[in-house]
Amino acid sequence: MIGYIEDKDALLARLARIEGQVRGLARMVEGDAYCIEVLTQVSATTRALRSVALELLDDHLAHCVIEAVAAGGDQAQAKAREASAAIARLVKS
Amino acid sequence: MIGYIEDKDALLARLARIEGQVRGLARMVEGDAYCIEVLTQVSATTRALRSVALELLDDHLAHCVIEAVAAGGDQAQAKAREASAAIARLVKS
Amino acid sequence: MIGYIEDKDALLARLARIEGQVRGLARMVEGDAYCIEVLTQVSATTRALRSVALELLDDHLAHCVIEAVAAGGDQAQAKAREASAAIARLVKS
Amino acid sequence: MIGYIEDKDALLARLARIEGQVRGLARMVEGDAYCIEVLTQVSATTRALRSVALELLDDHLAHCVIEAVAAGGDQAQAKAREASAAIARLVKS
Repeated sequence: MIGYIEDKDALLARLARIEGQVRGLARMVEGDAYCIEVLTQVSATTRALRSVALELLDDHLAHCVIEAVAAGGDQAQAKAREASAAIARLVKS
Repeated sequence: MIGYIEDKDALLARLARIEGQVRGLARMVEGDAYCIEVLTQVSATTRALRSVALELLDDHLAHCVIEAVAAGGDQAQAKAREASAAIARLVKS
Repeated sequence: MIGYIEDKDALLARLARIEGQVRGLARMVEGDAYCIEVLTQVSATTRALRSVALELLDDHLAHCVIEAVAAGGDQAQAKAREASAAIARLVKS
Repeated sequence: MIGYIEDKDALLARLARIEGQVRGLARMVEGDAYCIEVLTQVSATTRALRSVALELLDDHLAHCVIEAVAAGGDQAQAKAREASAAIARLVKS
């Protein structure tokens, strides 16, 4: 039960781009780029990561949580609580 | 189907405290408090609001979303997408 | 040395609006509004508070920090560190 | 005038660790890791990036902004506004 399974290639492509953004940050620092320019790119990289997180969460709710509830049993509450805890970590990150 | 219905009194008490925090901010500004002290209290008020949002979301997932899925039909996906959109607004706020 | 002194009335008006938003949240909860609608308004209130924080910080940097540095002495580093700590609390709130 | 110049090696080491974290995310996705585990690691990576941003900002205020103000002239206000804009982008990221 993997929520992102249908979007796996797109997700890997996004992570590869984010890895490139982080390498770009290192190159900027190596080249003594101006602090504010580095900061602007750090913010852009953070936004890209947030966006990946929201996509993962969307897929997780729409697939894993719904399947767990539909399957019945006592898994449903556990899945909802687990998702809430992940959302709290995301909001506080 | 109201997720917070069992915690309604506690939720209203938290909102009353937050209203008091915002009034406290106005009193600080009226009294020409130092910027950094006002900022520290704005951050504390924001944290209190975030915490209310996470509680609302937790109750919503554990009650409304689970009930909608358990009731079957085509409501389940709509509920999951609606929750995702609310989470995205929260994360970006 | 109060950074927001020239914008004090506008700042108080914004805080009064935010207090109204929080009271509106309590009225929604009293009226058993749907969780997602309450959440949307909590996010709007959080955004309004963030915006006040950024305005306070902007005024603080442009007035208090600059005056402290211009006045010379060993206050400058202390002011910069104090502002950094307030920014960190804001980002984590 | 580069605020992070004295911490450049430490900063590059942190960015290399973050690059490793992003590569770790891709490996988790390739191995079909559970959504919540990927999300937890995305949140940890976001926190690490935030922490780099706060460090950059701290160095920028304590070095670049202070030097610009101390140098006098009309650069001071411009530097303060530029820092404010970067803080706003960071808070909204």
